[in-house]
Amino acid sequence: MAVYTDLSDDELTALLAAYDIGQARAFKGIAEGVENSNFLLETDAGRFILTIFEKRVARADLPFFMDVMARLAAAGFPAPRPMPTRAGALLGEVRGKACAIVTFVSGVSPRRPSAAQCRALGVKLAEMHAILAPMQGARANALSLDAWAPLVRPRLALAEHLRPGLAAELEGDLAELDGAWPSGLPRGVIHADLFPDNALLLGDAVTGVIDFYFACDDALAYDLAVCLNAWCFEEGRSYNITKGRALIAGYESVRVLTAEERAALPTLCRGAAMRFLATRLADWAETPAGALVRPKDPMEYADKLAFHRKAVRVGDYGG
Amino acid sequence: MAVYTDLSDDELTALLAAYDIGQARAFKGIAEGVENSNFLLETDAGRFILTIFEKRVARADLPFFMDVMARLAAAGFPAPRPMPTRAGALLGEVRGKACAIVTFVSGVSPRRPSAAQCRALGVKLAEMHAILAPMQGARANALSLDAWAPLVRPRLALAEHLRPGLAAELEGDLAELDGAWPSGLPRGVIHADLFPDNALLLGDAVTGVIDFYFACDDALAYDLAVCLNAWCFEEGRSYNITKGRALIAGYESVRVLTAEERAALPTLCRGAAMRFLATRLADWAETPAGALVRPKDPMEYADKLAFHRKAVRVGDYGG
Repeated sequence: MAVYTDLSDDELTALLAAYDIGQARAFKGIAEGVENSNFLLETDAGRFILTIFEKRVARADLPFFMDVMARLAAAGFPAPRPMPTRAGALLGEVRGKACAIVTFVSGVSPRRPSAAQCRALGVKLAEMHAILAPMQGARANALSLDAWAPLVRPRLALAEHLRPGLAAELEGDLAELDGAWPSGLPRGVIHADLFPDNALLLGDAVTGVIDFYFACDDALAYDLAVCLNAWCFEEGRSYNITKGRALIAGYESVRVLTAEERAALPTLCRGAAMRFLATRLADWAETPAGALVRPKDPMEYADKLAFHRKAVRVGDYGG
Repeated sequence: MAVYTDLSDDELTALLAAYDIGQARAFKGIAEGVENSNFLLETDAGRFILTIFEKRVARADLPFFMDVMARLAAAGFPAPRPMPTRAGALLGEVRGKACAIVTFVSGVSPRRPSAAQCRALGVKLAEMHAILAPMQGARANALSLDAWAPLVRPRLALAEHLRPGLAAELEGDLAELDGAWPSGLPRGVIHADLFPDNALLLGDAVTGVIDFYFACDDALAYDLAVCLNAWCFEEGRSYNITKGRALIAGYESVRVLTAEERAALPTLCRGAAMRFLATRLADWAETPAGALVRPKDPMEYADKLAFHRKAVRVGDYGG
């Protein structure tokens, strides 16, 4: 939630000269995303978001992310559409950093999504998978199984400090996930970070999906597992099976899960919880005690892991 | 540059039920202002800024600030217009805090204003003074002469640390300002913080003046002195007399300064520089060393004070 690069009006004018979208009529930094700097940009041609990519996003991956958004938008999916420069590039440059100007997408992110909203999200998730199917193999998931142990093991003492007993549980999780992680499931390009923060809704309708900067090639059902983790737990961290049922039913209204995917879902959900616990634990460890910006609570995902440890079949998730 | 209160969609819906501006169509925290939480809010009725007032703004002053904006907007001045609740109030409440929904004003804040932009700002400043004239006597300036010594004197050691010799200079400034501060000048309601950040322009036209949360009753020429400090120094901190001449000429195209105001201008400029040095020194002293948000540099205003110390007449400012 920060703006790292503070652009001047002169720099903005120079940047816009490379595009065919007119002059700036309004320009405000927005508190969205923790990886990049984002600005609301209104020009004679409409409203846009200008994103300046900071160091956490690898420059080599940016063309892939732009391609994902461009394909989705071209197919009528409500993703931001990257605006091309006059030279036809989907990426620009400002202050020595890569940037992109994408269309503004309306809607409000839900804090506590309803079952109807979970269903709508499931539908959109499956539609997104269908549109992105031709792109598969494009970018490996850098935060999958192999990444978790190197992130978690050096921080087991911190985990134990945060909750006595957690270190041994996480060691057990890592071992079991390593043995049980599925292969051979239907794959494709997934969002991999479709939290409610990255969805925009009006009432029960999903009017936008944003922030494709973790998109990668992986099992499609893993994307569903990320969403079940992010959308279907209540604030007390108990799993709401009504919401889970709605999300899975929405997804299956577009694409029916295979028997293998259904069997793998508890393991995929457990892995997805481990992935977010792993990065949150790392962020927690790296943030100085007095910092004004507190990282997200890793214990939220420790609680979700505890649920997944006991879940054994897709029915436990409402599938 | 932060959002302190993070409102949920449910809280937003409940808040909007008190207004007659329809449902939310977009809602994003914006990185604007350091005193309050600000959000871009788009509804069926248009675009607005929702401001939630945090502790640094006194609740008792809020009706006055709303009245200032409402009067300006009603007179056709490009200030944000507070939207009334269904009950007719210009202030709402959310999460136990006061809030306001005001119209969105287009334009981009200039980083390095041109002379033409300074002239346009001078015109708008004088127009604003004319519109607000009937309100005078409404709110004392809490950051005028009497406030500076209590802010600066306890931090003279810090000032000396930042620049050897500065402590003695500031003691001298405080004594001379105390002796020379003018009284009897034309008064009225002033903005008191009209930095380029708080002006919105399209080309050379001022399309908006925002952030009236320091507005108060004071000498009108003091507001001009604040603007000369904030708009007419270059990045190397030298005074640009061409810009100063333009700003003063713009102001005088609407209201001619009296002989007393012209004579007092160097003292008013020196006082205005002391006012911003005083609060920046206090913010600097109170910010922990490792904080992610760095306060504004107090030395910028120490440099401006050095210029004002040598200025003796209005001609030194281009008047």
